[in-house]
Amino acid sequence: MNVLVVYAHPVEDSFAAAARDTALKALRGAGHDVRLIDLYAEGFEPRRTLDENASGARPEDRVDIGTYVRAVRWARGIVFVHPTWWGAQPAILKGWLDRVFIEGVAFTQAPGSKRIKPKLRNVHRLAVVTTHGSSKLVNVIQGEAGKHLIGRGIRVLCHPLARTRWIAMYGMDRATDDDRLEFLSSVERRLARL
Amino acid sequence: MNVLVVYAHPVEDSFAAAARDTALKALRGAGHDVRLIDLYAEGFEPRRTLDENASGARPEDRVDIGTYVRAVRWARGIVFVHPTWWGAQPAILKGWLDRVFIEGVAFTQAPGSKRIKPKLRNVHRLAVVTTHGSSKLVNVIQGEAGKHLIGRGIRVLCHPLARTRWIAMYGMDRATDDDRLEFLSSVERRLARL
Repeated sequence: MNVLVVYAHPVEDSFAAAARDTALKALRGAGHDVRLIDLYAEGFEPRRTLDENASGARPEDRVDIGTYVRAVRWARGIVFVHPTWWGAQPAILKGWLDRVFIEGVAFTQAPGSKRIKPKLRNVHRLAVVTTHGSSKLVNVIQGEAGKHLIGRGIRVLCHPLARTRWIAMYGMDRATDDDRLEFLSSVERRLARL
Repeated sequence: MNVLVVYAHPVEDSFAAAARDTALKALRGAGHDVRLIDLYAEGFEPRRTLDENASGARPEDRVDIGTYVRAVRWARGIVFVHPTWWGAQPAILKGWLDRVFIEGVAFTQAPGSKRIKPKLRNVHRLAVVTTHGSSKLVNVIQGEAGKHLIGRGIRVLCHPLARTRWIAMYGMDRATDDDRLEFLSSVERRLARL
């Protein structure tokens, strides 16, 4: 299937980059058609303004986000790979959601209506590969904001039977090499059968 | 007391701007010493990189974030004013937390230790004034990621007796003028006794 990988980490030799490469390898190995969006490398601008579509162009035709919109529509699976900062997505990834998952892309809403109609029905698989500096316990206490955003907010707009995978490593700040290798194996294993 | 207002909305004549002005008026009226950070107006860069402190300067001395760090340390209360997008803070505000609330500012951590020591003990009041396009019900279902981030993640680093106020308007997309006025009154009333 078509799988879009959205990656956000500023450092090219980071552990997140290793997780990204493992994810790409596992997905390609399973025969998927994979596209990568590397937000930092592409210099993505995360600050949404409300006049950014003054031209009135359709989302897929806009010069700033058109490529992303087309990639989202193309995808049957979306995999996010990122570190977790303050319990949630890095700002650059939050901004990608703010600016790309707009009306006409993620949902539609008739004027005056309060009903939102999901528009990500093409997405049958959602996965997140993420690393937390702090422990699982700390994250549970803090509420795992990022998990809610994807697993609830985005998930309800996808295909009704869409499956979500949450592949998270906790306690990165004191992880051993073995812990890291074990996490990469789990990324490989779980994404191979996305 | 010293109150820092952190505001994030791209449009100057937005309802969020009205909420900000109401907040400032209420806080000043109550005799507080108030400072405003307007993230969009200041062109704040939300994309955290990990080499941004290559110079090794102390957070308060850094040219990029020093002013913000000093403002956070000065504050006895912090009030965030922003729209809620995807259940959470706009990327520009998430990035402000990513880049300013770093080790040495929001917490400290001894090398090799897994214990994080809170460093926002000067903050006795936290408040959020926010507007949601969608209904309260939709937000509860979606998990209110932004609420967890501030009310749990940041809150635990503040003074142990710190009080949190969540002043939210839901259903903005179909609000009447009366609804809006009522919300502004509630902002005024609740922040006047922060």
